[in-house]
Amino acid sequence: MKCKICGRPAVIKLPAHNIALCEKCFEEFVLRRVKNAIKTYKMFTKDDKVAVAVSGGKDSLALWDILTRLGYETGGIHIHLGIGKYSDESLQKAENFAKKINSELTVIYVRDFFGTGIPEIAKITKRKTCSVCGTIKRYLMNRFAYEKGYTVLATGHNLDDEASTLLGNLLYWKDLYLARKGPVLPSTHPKLIRKVKPLVFLTEREIAAYTILRGIDYIYEECPHAAGATSIFHKHVLNEIENYSPGTKLHFLKGFYERKNIFARLYPEETKMQHECKECGYPSSGEICGFCKLRRRVKEKLENGRETTTA
Amino acid sequence: MKCKICGRPAVIKLPAHNIALCEKCFEEFVLRRVKNAIKTYKMFTKDDKVAVAVSGGKDSLALWDILTRLGYETGGIHIHLGIGKYSDESLQKAENFAKKINSELTVIYVRDFFGTGIPEIAKITKRKTCSVCGTIKRYLMNRFAYEKGYTVLATGHNLDDEASTLLGNLLYWKDLYLARKGPVLPSTHPKLIRKVKPLVFLTEREIAAYTILRGIDYIYEECPHAAGATSIFHKHVLNEIENYSPGTKLHFLKGFYERKNIFARLYPEETKMQHECKECGYPSSGEICGFCKLRRRVKEKLENGRETTTA
Repeated sequence: MKCKICGRPAVIKLPAHNIALCEKCFEEFVLRRVKNAIKTYKMFTKDDKVAVAVSGGKDSLALWDILTRLGYETGGIHIHLGIGKYSDESLQKAENFAKKINSELTVIYVRDFFGTGIPEIAKITKRKTCSVCGTIKRYLMNRFAYEKGYTVLATGHNLDDEASTLLGNLLYWKDLYLARKGPVLPSTHPKLIRKVKPLVFLTEREIAAYTILRGIDYIYEECPHAAGATSIFHKHVLNEIENYSPGTKLHFLKGFYERKNIFARLYPEETKMQHECKECGYPSSGEICGFCKLRRRVKEKLENGRETTTA
Repeated sequence: MKCKICGRPAVIKLPAHNIALCEKCFEEFVLRRVKNAIKTYKMFTKDDKVAVAVSGGKDSLALWDILTRLGYETGGIHIHLGIGKYSDESLQKAENFAKKINSELTVIYVRDFFGTGIPEIAKITKRKTCSVCGTIKRYLMNRFAYEKGYTVLATGHNLDDEASTLLGNLLYWKDLYLARKGPVLPSTHPKLIRKVKPLVFLTEREIAAYTILRGIDYIYEECPHAAGATSIFHKHVLNEIENYSPGTKLHFLKGFYERKNIFARLYPEETKMQHECKECGYPSSGEICGFCKLRRRVKEKLENGRETTTA
């Protein structure tokens, strides 16, 4: 198997693109794909200061590596979730990588805001772990990207993540998600930073290969509370479809992005944050934002708990 | 396993509906599902004269049986495609069933119009067999339903057919098909009969069970040129999804029908047939309809062939 571009021995076959590539040409391919996504969806320019949402996993570290190599001004933001050893190791990987590329990493601890970590917060509020974690991460990422002077927030969502979510949203016709999902979530408020997904043109497999070739050390374990069987099942189904007809995943997602307006039109009002939270001052759909409501509930519960224990 | 409705021994489990049913209650369930689809999508009323497109397969015979039991005025139309033994046996099954229910069957022979059958027509016109067969069947079904005084044409498309086509159309974003597909194709010209799909709420498995319980004798073989691997593959994928989460197939299709307008809006012009064919007088998008064009080409070729042979 020879590299289609330079003729040297190939290290990876890419059926969706009908090519095989050597190490060097594959790395260039990956950089080109990301550059292409950034340009196609007007994600950001060299004038932007890009915050990378760094979990310590392969996607976010690959993203940080790629954006740095492409010459963007970047910095990482890591949220320490307080999920035992998993969170400590994730932080370690993120810190090691930041040192390696000599870039700034902002670390935010969930416990500094809640007095405890995600699992306990979920238990107290009787909400699903992934849902509560999403609310908290989105809030903290936005707030600290804003406070640190970043102009855009990039996340490591890849083609598999996006296509499988899309499949699920279509199977169950989740209009609101269909209306909102996209490679760019525009800012609708001065304190709400634009969010972008530069890895949408790359599959999980391609990103994994890239991290191996680049010697990027990431956390292999999935979060112990991980995403749930359904998204994994939809990824499996899409991989079957992809094997049957290579290139479908990419075509499916890109085609959706091109037709996004037909779904967005269904929810013209939903895209605006009308208020500012009376507690923290950040954008909110109600008087108090979801994050501050969560904090209140957890605080009350923990204080009552303490009283009960000491009584 | 007991029937959820009457408590007798159940013969079939329906995970999508979270029930098991006995023979009698299952038959009633099937009739109710069809009645429901007819009503939900305003397909036709007792004042209509319903032509059933009868291939001789399980879906079309079940449909004819069900509509008759529901008290509609029905008649069958069968197109003899000229695909060797397969076509002769299909006709036999259709005729036997018509006799059994004492109903009229109109039989149209493709060879009466083309001098030969589908396989030869496909060869001569260098078109795909299923595509050419579709054009011819749609034309003849509409024309003879109209000429025989029927007011609506019912086909045996079931939930699996429709959901798998929908999946394919979404994966590859075939806007035109998304805009046009539906349980009812309205008449847009006096000589274009409304087409309806009363079996869209029933799966292939449910229909197969119904035909067995009713002792309906149908042709088991698939057409030797059958539909191609992709639609079968998409059915397989959807069955996997259905097994993982029973009810998804139905939810997926119904949800699409509810949102059809958002796709239909993309092609407002495409729904109208502007002309009448100068040769046959039936609706056409151009001066000569696709059917008559096909006929011309086949006729020319066959006549030339005859000259060459006799020369």
